[in-house]
Amino acid sequence: MQSYRRQYADHMRKNKSMSTLILVFHPHLQNGSRVNARLIAELKAQGEEDITIRDEYAEYPNFAVNVDHEHELLEAADSVILQFPFYWYSSPALLKEWEDRVITAGWAYGGSYALRGKELKLVVTTGSGAAKYQKDGEYGRTMDELLSPFEVVAYKVGMEYAKPFLVQGTATITDDALDQAAADYVSAILD
Amino acid sequence: MQSYRRQYADHMRKNKSMSTLILVFHPHLQNGSRVNARLIAELKAQGEEDITIRDEYAEYPNFAVNVDHEHELLEAADSVILQFPFYWYSSPALLKEWEDRVITAGWAYGGSYALRGKELKLVVTTGSGAAKYQKDGEYGRTMDELLSPFEVVAYKVGMEYAKPFLVQGTATITDDALDQAAADYVSAILD
Repeated sequence: MQSYRRQYADHMRKNKSMSTLILVFHPHLQNGSRVNARLIAELKAQGEEDITIRDEYAEYPNFAVNVDHEHELLEAADSVILQFPFYWYSSPALLKEWEDRVITAGWAYGGSYALRGKELKLVVTTGSGAAKYQKDGEYGRTMDELLSPFEVVAYKVGMEYAKPFLVQGTATITDDALDQAAADYVSAILD
Repeated sequence: MQSYRRQYADHMRKNKSMSTLILVFHPHLQNGSRVNARLIAELKAQGEEDITIRDEYAEYPNFAVNVDHEHELLEAADSVILQFPFYWYSSPALLKEWEDRVITAGWAYGGSYALRGKELKLVVTTGSGAAKYQKDGEYGRTMDELLSPFEVVAYKVGMEYAKPFLVQGTATITDDALDQAAADYVSAILD
C-alpha cells in the first residue's frame, strides 16, 4: 500500500512538476531537536530532488530575515511547508517575524498575489499529547483553533490551506512511535 | 455614571494596592501608530501612579529581551496587559519572542508559579472591522479563536485571562470613534 501510494505520488509529482519548499523554524534543529531533526533526516534520506529544506533559525540567528530571498524561494515553490515545534501554543518567534516581514502588501496581497494557488501545509510537533488539545481536554482548545491564525493568513493571500501534519506527545515519544511518525511525515510530504 | 465608576475603581485600587503593567508591542509606537499611540497618551494623561507603561520594541529593537528585568516587572504587577496591533492575526513577532524567553520553566510553571493569580488582559487593535472576524464573516474565524493561544498560556501559568479589549476597524476609524475608543480603553484599564 505504502509502495503504491509512493509510486502514485511520484507519478503525480512528475506530471505536475511539483516543487516543495520546507521552511523549518526550530531554534535548536541541529543541536537539541530529537523529533524535528529526525523527521527532516528521514525526508532527506529519500533523496527527492524537488524538495528544498531550510533551517530558518540557522539562516537568521538575529531575526534579520532576507525578504527578497524568501520571496524568490516562495515564488519557485508549488507547495510551502512551515514546520515548527509548538512554542506557547503557536510558532517560535522567528516564524512570526518571517510572516511580518515576508508577506508584504503589493506582493502577496493588495494588488499582486504571488502566493495564490500554492499549497500551505503546517507541520507541528507538540510536547503534550493530543488529548490535552480538545474542547474537553486540559487546554480546552483544539489544535484547529490554536492554529487558526495561519489558516486566515492562507485565506488572505489565496493559498490552499492543507490539513496540518501533527506529531503530538513528543516529550515522551518512544523510539518506535518516532519511527512511525517519521514514515508518516514522509508520506504526508510526498503524497 | 462614568464618574461613579471611576470613583469606585479608585477606591478598589487603593484598597487592593493594584499595580498594572502595560507592555506595548508595536514596532512604530512613537513614529507611525495612530491608534495605539492615542490610547497610551489618553491613559498617561490620567496620571495614575500605579501604572507602568513600556514600549517593548523601543526597549528591544534587536529582540534581545532582558529576561531578568521582565521577571522583576511582572513580579511587581497585579495586572499584566499585553497590548499590540494585530499582525497576521496574532501579535507582532517581539511579543512571541518575549513569551518564548520570559515565560520560563521553574519560574512561571513547573514547580514555581510567579504569575499565578495575576490578571492577564490583551488589548488588541485590528485594521479590519469586527464584521470580518465572525464565523460567517470574511475570515471565518472569531477573535476568540485567533487569540486562543494566549488564553492557554494564561491557563498554563495560572493567570486569570480577562476579556480582551478590542479596537477594530482602525484602518478607517474616524477621529470621533477614536476619541470614544480612547475613553473606553482608559475605563477598561482603570476599572
